This record gives sequence, C-alpha cells and structure tokens, in this order.
Amino acid sequence: MNPSTDRRLLGIDFGGTKMAIGIGDAAGTPLVSERLPTLAARGARQALDRALDLAQKLITDTGGTLHAAGIASPGLVREDGIDLAPNVPGWEELRLAEAVCDHLGIARVSVANDLNAAALAELRHGALRDADPGLVIGLGTGVAAAITVGGAVVSGHHGAAGEIAYAVAGPDWPASPEPLLEQAFSGRALDELADELPVAGGAAGLCAAAASPGAARDALVAGVDELARHVVTCCLLLDPQRIVLVGGVAGNDLVRDLLIERLSAALPYVPEVVLSSFAQDAALLGALTLAAQADG
Amino acid sequence: MNPSTDRRLLGIDFGGTKMAIGIGDAAGTPLVSERLPTLAARGARQALDRALDLAQKLITDTGGTLHAAGIASPGLVREDGIDLAPNVPGWEELRLAEAVCDHLGIARVSVANDLNAAALAELRHGALRDADPGLVIGLGTGVAAAITVGGAVVSGHHGAAGEIAYAVAGPDWPASPEPLLEQAFSGRALDELADELPVAGGAAGLCAAAASPGAARDALVAGVDELARHVVTCCLLLDPQRIVLVGGVAGNDLVRDLLIERLSAALPYVPEVVLSSFAQDAALLGALTLAAQADG
Repeated sequence: MNPSTDRRLLGIDFGGTKMAIGIGDAAGTPLVSERLPTLAARGARQALDRALDLAQKLITDTGGTLHAAGIASPGLVREDGIDLAPNVPGWEELRLAEAVCDHLGIARVSVANDLNAAALAELRHGALRDADPGLVIGLGTGVAAAITVGGAVVSGHHGAAGEIAYAVAGPDWPASPEPLLEQAFSGRALDELADELPVAGGAAGLCAAAASPGAARDALVAGVDELARHVVTCCLLLDPQRIVLVGGVAGNDLVRDLLIERLSAALPYVPEVVLSSFAQDAALLGALTLAAQADG
Repeated sequence: MNPSTDRRLLGIDFGGTKMAIGIGDAAGTPLVSERLPTLAARGARQALDRALDLAQKLITDTGGTLHAAGIASPGLVREDGIDLAPNVPGWEELRLAEAVCDHLGIARVSVANDLNAAALAELRHGALRDADPGLVIGLGTGVAAAITVGGAVVSGHHGAAGEIAYAVAGPDWPASPEPLLEQAFSGRALDELADELPVAGGAAGLCAAAASPGAARDALVAGVDELARHVVTCCLLLDPQRIVLVGGVAGNDLVRDLLIERLSAALPYVPEVVLSSFAQDAALLGALTLAAQADG
C-alpha cells in the first residue's frame, strides 16, 4: 500500500498543564504521541498553535493522509467558545473545532470534554469495558468526573455532566460561596498549597513531602477528605461498579489509598477503585476514538 | 365482558409513614387507591399484614382477577431481605415478594426501590417524559434520589443508586462520621427537630412554623442548605434537564423555593425543578407500572 494513502487520525488532549498529541491509524490505535507543556499563564492561543504545529509535524513524519481529528478539552465545548474551563486564560473564547479544521485542512473534527473522552477510552479499551455504571474521576490540573451507563458516556443535558469542580466545599456556604471543590483539591490547588507552605516542586513536591507526617501531609489529607465527601455523594447517587482514577495527581499512592479508605468507611456498597491503565493517556486515547467515530 | 375475568393489577407503595395500596386495570391505570398509616414503631410485620389485608379487600371490591403486583419499598430489596431501610423496625428482614405472593395467591410480583418506582412513573406518565437526564429527589420520611438516563431508570450496580441518605453531612467527618444527610434533613429528622424546639405537629408543624422568622425557620433553612449541598454535587455529576421533587416534605413551598434558590446560586447550569404532578402517588403509580410489566 502506498504510505501516502494510509488513513491517519489525529487526537489532541488539551490539559491545563500538559497537552498530548497523538497520531493513530484508521482504527484509532496510536502510532506515535508526544507531550508539550501548556504554559497556561501565556494564554490559550499560543498553546493551541504549538499543539497544531506539532500535530502537523507528526502527521508529516508518520506519512499517510489525515482524515479526521478528535479533540479533548476541559469544560464544555460549544461552536463559538468553551464554558467552565478556567485553568487556561483565554481558553473560553477559542473556536476549537474551527481552528483545528483550518490549520490542518480537514473537515471532520469531533470535540469532547476531556473527562468524557477519557471515559470513552475506558469504556472501549480500558477499565470500564466490563463495569456498569462506571465513574471516572479526573485529578489533574483541575478536578472533574465522567459517568458511563449501559455502555455509553452520559454527557448530560448541557453537555456538562461531571463538572464536580464547582461543588460546594466551604463550611459556611451559602453565606460564603467559596471554596469550591476545585479550590480545595486539584493539581492547581496543590500547587498553590505548596507555594504557601512552602514546599518546593508544586503539587508533585507536596505529594512527595506528604509521605512523612507534617504540614504537607495534613494539607493533602484535608484536600482528599473534601474530595471524598463529594465522591461519596456521587457514588451514592450512581452506585458505580468501578471508579477509574485518571490524571497526574491520581497517580499518587497516598491520594489513592486515602480516597479508597474514606469511601470504604462511608459507603454501604463500595465500588472497586482502580488507576487507569492508560497512565495519563486516557483522554488522548478517547480523542483518537472520537476521531475514528468522526471518520466512520 | 364478565367482570370476574377482568385483569386487575395491584400496586403497593410502602413508606416509613404511610402505605398506599392501589388497584389498576390491565394497563396499570389506577381504578381505586387507599392509604394507611405505617405505624412504623409497631414494626414491619403488622404494616405488611394490614397492607395486604386492604389489598385483598380492594381486589374483592373492584372485582376481576388479580394477575400481578408491583411493590415499591424503601431501600434495596433482595429475595431474602431488604437493605438500607432503617425507618421501619424489622423491615430489613422481610421477604417481601414471597409474602405478597403467598398472601394474595399470585405468581408475578415485581419489587423495586420506591424512588426508582417513582422515577419510572415520572418517565412513563409524568415530568420526565420529555427530560433527559432526569433526577428525582424524594423528601418523605427519609431522603433519597433516583436518576433516569436515555428513558430508563438507572438502578446501579447493586441496585442502590440514589441512596443519598448516607451522604456525609457533618463538618467533622471523617473524625465524626455523623450526621448523615438523612439525620440532617428528612421528614424523620424534621419530626425530631419539632420535638426538640418544641413545635407541635412534627415535620408538618415545623414547616408551618417556619413561615415566620425564628428558630423553626432557622432549623429548616439549615436542613435545606445541607440537602442543597448534596443536590448541587448530584446535579454537577449528572447535568439533569429536570429535577422532580416527590414526597410529603417536598410539597412545602418554603423547602422547594429555598432549594431552587440554593441550586440557582451554586450551579453553572440550573435544571428545572418541578413538584411531581402525582402528589404523593408517584411511587404507587410506579408500582402499578411494574405490575403491568410483570404481567406483560
């Protein structure tokens, strides 16, 4: 077969800290992938441009013809902007699908919420293949969730299912509306906590320091306890068979073990809790699955 | 048609305070229904026996032949008992389907959680016919929920979806595991609050007294605020199009208006909130729908 006629698919997972770009074959199986820092403080446009430049390079490198793209983004992607994506300044004004089509000269682009894309990957290829209902908890720069019922991702009436970052986390609500869950526990919140304590190395440094008793551990435990309260309510509502944890913070053993301990203490029926086997690539694999569906 | 050959269906909704017994035609449309007090403190067996005696009487009165029954119960109904149904002593040991079959001499009995039965009634005949996803919040003797996705009730992996009564409601969790949401806000919690204040007339008396500023209103507001925190998390997870409130406490305007106010302040996308048009009969209608399905 002439390599230039091979069907290629593109997947991009835009995160608040990192972006992952992958090229897949016609079935969405990844052939190659690379990561870039988002450099969120510099704004949305430069992040998007660098991601698309790298995508173009990877397409050229792997040969074949790009047929469709799947994009995973935080928040709720509309045609003319993105809601509920506060972690990259300017992200909310992006016309994401349009930019990808224009830059890469393709017509078929499918865009989804990043956690919903991760849930799709878990359903098709991962830990939710044989679990129903399924709950995905994303602990990355932000905090979010996704749910699967009967073999499908539930996107919700506005496409906003899973946006638990906005949950009420403060003791004085409603008099004081903050903190929200994302301010109490997320990669970004842990970065800020690390600066305050101070502990070097941001969220990762804080998690490492929390291995020993002290202020870092107390702060991490308090954050996980707040997360656990909400995951308890989510589990009571959905009665999931399995929870899949995705994202950088989820890889921390202390965070995971503590969350499991809290769920076990509070829930009458405790779901299995597993770490995604895709490491941090669940949303990227989901984006490639979306691209394959768009191409189909 | 000979009346004795008319197909009849039985529906029973067992609640912590009241039981509703209804006879329907072959399609599950109610012909007649009556209510009885549960008298929970006297135990489960007497409640079940009185309900089944009344059912037998109503069947005889309406004529026709009983073909199937649908039963709505709090908690999670297994063949040899019922889990998570603390409001009637002894309820957890009942073999509910077996008792109904034996007493009434029928073979087809379908048993479901009461809120799931209510959600089925809302999906087929009520406020969730044209809403997806749907969230039912039950504010009766206890507090519970049910969810509908894609035209079906989601029962969860163990059949325990919606059991939000067990949500963590105390500020000192996990050091102090209580109060749970059901202890902070439910008909039973309001009854106890009324005794403590004291206000005459139990939950209903407390709700009436809360129309004016004072201790009763403060207590009711604190309870609704706690409920609202959890409903916020439920809405963030599911992004429902519509919430349907069912149960005696839900009929109180102050409770409903306050819950809507809190959801509106906290949620990026606010679902419609409506009171069930079935008054307190949603679970009974669901039980008759279950009976029609069992008979089908």
